[in-house]
Amino acid sequence: MQVSSPSFTNHAGRTGKFSRLEKWLLPLVFRGVGPVPMRLQLADGESVAPPGVAPRFTVRMRDLRTLAEVLLDPEIGFGDGWTDGRIQVTGDLVAYLEAVYESMERAAPTPSWYARLVSKSIASRQANTLEGSRKNIHSHYDIGNEFYRLWLDSQMVYTCAYFVSQTATLEEAQIAKMDLVCRKLRLQPGETVVEAGCGWGALALHMARNYGVRVRAFNVSSEQIRHARERARQENLSGQVEFVEDDYRNVSGAADVFVSVGMLEHVDPKNYAGFGSVIHRVIGDRGRGFLHFIGRSQQGDFSRWIRKRIFPGAHAPSLREALQVLEPFGYFVQDVENLRPHYAKTLEHWLDRFDKASAQISSRYGAEFERAWRLYLAGSIAGFRTGTLQLFQIVFSGAKSASLPWTRADLYGDPQESSEWIPATY
Amino acid sequence: MQVSSPSFTNHAGRTGKFSRLEKWLLPLVFRGVGPVPMRLQLADGESVAPPGVAPRFTVRMRDLRTLAEVLLDPEIGFGDGWTDGRIQVTGDLVAYLEAVYESMERAAPTPSWYARLVSKSIASRQANTLEGSRKNIHSHYDIGNEFYRLWLDSQMVYTCAYFVSQTATLEEAQIAKMDLVCRKLRLQPGETVVEAGCGWGALALHMARNYGVRVRAFNVSSEQIRHARERARQENLSGQVEFVEDDYRNVSGAADVFVSVGMLEHVDPKNYAGFGSVIHRVIGDRGRGFLHFIGRSQQGDFSRWIRKRIFPGAHAPSLREALQVLEPFGYFVQDVENLRPHYAKTLEHWLDRFDKASAQISSRYGAEFERAWRLYLAGSIAGFRTGTLQLFQIVFSGAKSASLPWTRADLYGDPQESSEWIPATY
Repeated sequence: MQVSSPSFTNHAGRTGKFSRLEKWLLPLVFRGVGPVPMRLQLADGESVAPPGVAPRFTVRMRDLRTLAEVLLDPEIGFGDGWTDGRIQVTGDLVAYLEAVYESMERAAPTPSWYARLVSKSIASRQANTLEGSRKNIHSHYDIGNEFYRLWLDSQMVYTCAYFVSQTATLEEAQIAKMDLVCRKLRLQPGETVVEAGCGWGALALHMARNYGVRVRAFNVSSEQIRHARERARQENLSGQVEFVEDDYRNVSGAADVFVSVGMLEHVDPKNYAGFGSVIHRVIGDRGRGFLHFIGRSQQGDFSRWIRKRIFPGAHAPSLREALQVLEPFGYFVQDVENLRPHYAKTLEHWLDRFDKASAQISSRYGAEFERAWRLYLAGSIAGFRTGTLQLFQIVFSGAKSASLPWTRADLYGDPQESSEWIPATY
Repeated sequence: MQVSSPSFTNHAGRTGKFSRLEKWLLPLVFRGVGPVPMRLQLADGESVAPPGVAPRFTVRMRDLRTLAEVLLDPEIGFGDGWTDGRIQVTGDLVAYLEAVYESMERAAPTPSWYARLVSKSIASRQANTLEGSRKNIHSHYDIGNEFYRLWLDSQMVYTCAYFVSQTATLEEAQIAKMDLVCRKLRLQPGETVVEAGCGWGALALHMARNYGVRVRAFNVSSEQIRHARERARQENLSGQVEFVEDDYRNVSGAADVFVSVGMLEHVDPKNYAGFGSVIHRVIGDRGRGFLHFIGRSQQGDFSRWIRKRIFPGAHAPSLREALQVLEPFGYFVQDVENLRPHYAKTLEHWLDRFDKASAQISSRYGAEFERAWRLYLAGSIAGFRTGTLQLFQIVFSGAKSASLPWTRADLYGDPQESSEWIPATY
């Protein structure tokens, strides 16, 4: 993606008196991000590149303030600077962010005291209490359904798709993902399902329509629930799918199956056992369940910029961390699949559509908003490509669940073909 | 399985003077194991069953000593008592053990101070130091290849098989398992593999013969290594497979792939990060790997009897525990599969063959040995059937691994069919 960006004007009032300071400060940027193959340049032409590395990108900063912000906090300093045009990157933005992520992974710089302080302050302001979650979710998902319609697939599925083949379209891949979830859960007609965090309702409707199950789907985003209910009405599925505007912690009623796709990221790790107890309340020891979430190979936080500007209160756990949800309740993990490359591809489709709608988005939501979201999508592609981010799907079952599939072969054969089932106490 | 067992003779010297004590002690057994549906009986006829439960089994104890040992430690007391014929179980032994496991899971009795003391003492005597591991492994795997030949498949594979269909034979299922491992690892001709804990060498030879890779396979069991080298010679694979009699901690040399099937159970959890560093020494950030091990849904120990009599120093980790091996090194978990029911079926085949060879085993190794091993096999079936035990296969790759499969469909299609591969930094 070629990035267009406001052209620099020399910083008003610059006299050159900072030039010696800047010359001394500029190389310090590499302390925070490692030897990224870039030439770092100030508007007056002063520039530096890490020794022995051929620069593949040029990053220009408009003024000393921008440089100072990047030095204090490379994540927020760069994110905010790029968003409002004080930082320009020549070359492909995704490739640049990949280079930064790879460099930071290798260099593993210790965050400064300032960055740690910022991180703590973000975390404390964004705690996922019942009230906090509602606020956090509102800020991201209630921007307006019209906004998401501009760059998501026609069914508005805002989670990792599953590309049976790399050339599948985004619409095909989102349907394939919903179907994969249903098949991994081996849904049977007449079963009951609770879904925690249902987005715009596409999965709940797919399960009901294509697998004959009854679904209660929860979400605290009022914009999304409104849309989901409307779709259920249009499809005459209101009797089979109930959309409830409430927090997952208030889920009530028993069900055969618990599903959550893309919601664990909005649960505080310290609430994982609480999340597990909600699941246990729903499916007990006899049901089965499914978790789909953005994860990591090692414990860590989303970037401070992402948490501050895009996803308040969000956390992508390592697999080990995520198992804190299931192990206290003795759930059997049946299957874990990592769909990391599928999320990179999903995001490429999103960014492509986003780019095509960028003029419309800028004029409606403002240029800074458009740039912030573009940076978030580009950074997410880079995250999934480099492996900073992973996508895990976990299938689990209660200790007393009634039956188990014998192998996973049925997931990949003709979906009509009956698979071999066995009693779980085999 | 109907269990034959030495018939009771009245305990020499019994006069009946313990009868009031026994009457008082007998019900206490249920405190340790919960309300198992059994009638518990002493040789003199004194018996008790839990109220409101229809007894499906009768368990007879020969004397007060046996009862006292069961009360002090239900695991070792029962195991040792059953082994030397002081305890008889009428009815199917596997079904009885299933009932006990299910009852203990529900009742979750707190182990007595005595049992905890025994547990600690076993653990400290069986620590898996380099020397300790050699001793622990020797005691189980060096009983003699002739013994294992009596009840394993023709290739002597002593780990969970993979039954493509439930009616597959054990030989077919072991070949299918080895092939599943190779396909999950997507082995390519010319690649190098390190195997830690190679048993009698069947997997190493399968990989070399069928996938054209070069293998260095490690094992501290001299009996197994001797057999494996002989097989390599017979198959003219000595140039392609090197069997090394050494501890996994001494593994040297780089490889594309690290495989370990059924060895993690012999690593102390406190050595998991050390095990991870061995893996990292071999495949670095570019290779890929595979772990196959007996696990649990929640953290816990093997029974004290199993640890004392059968598997010194062994531990079956929860998935969360096992990830301590991989997460410190940033390995990406690609795939986890739980083959629990396949291990129950594997063990059924083993026990069936074991039963057929029982006269031979008794006469060669002694009746107590034969009974101890029968109890271990029966108990393992019960463990995998009830879910006390699980079987996990983990596929992982280094953060810089060169390529990834796009989906898992190739694992279930025609193995000749080429699968879609993508660069890992996709």
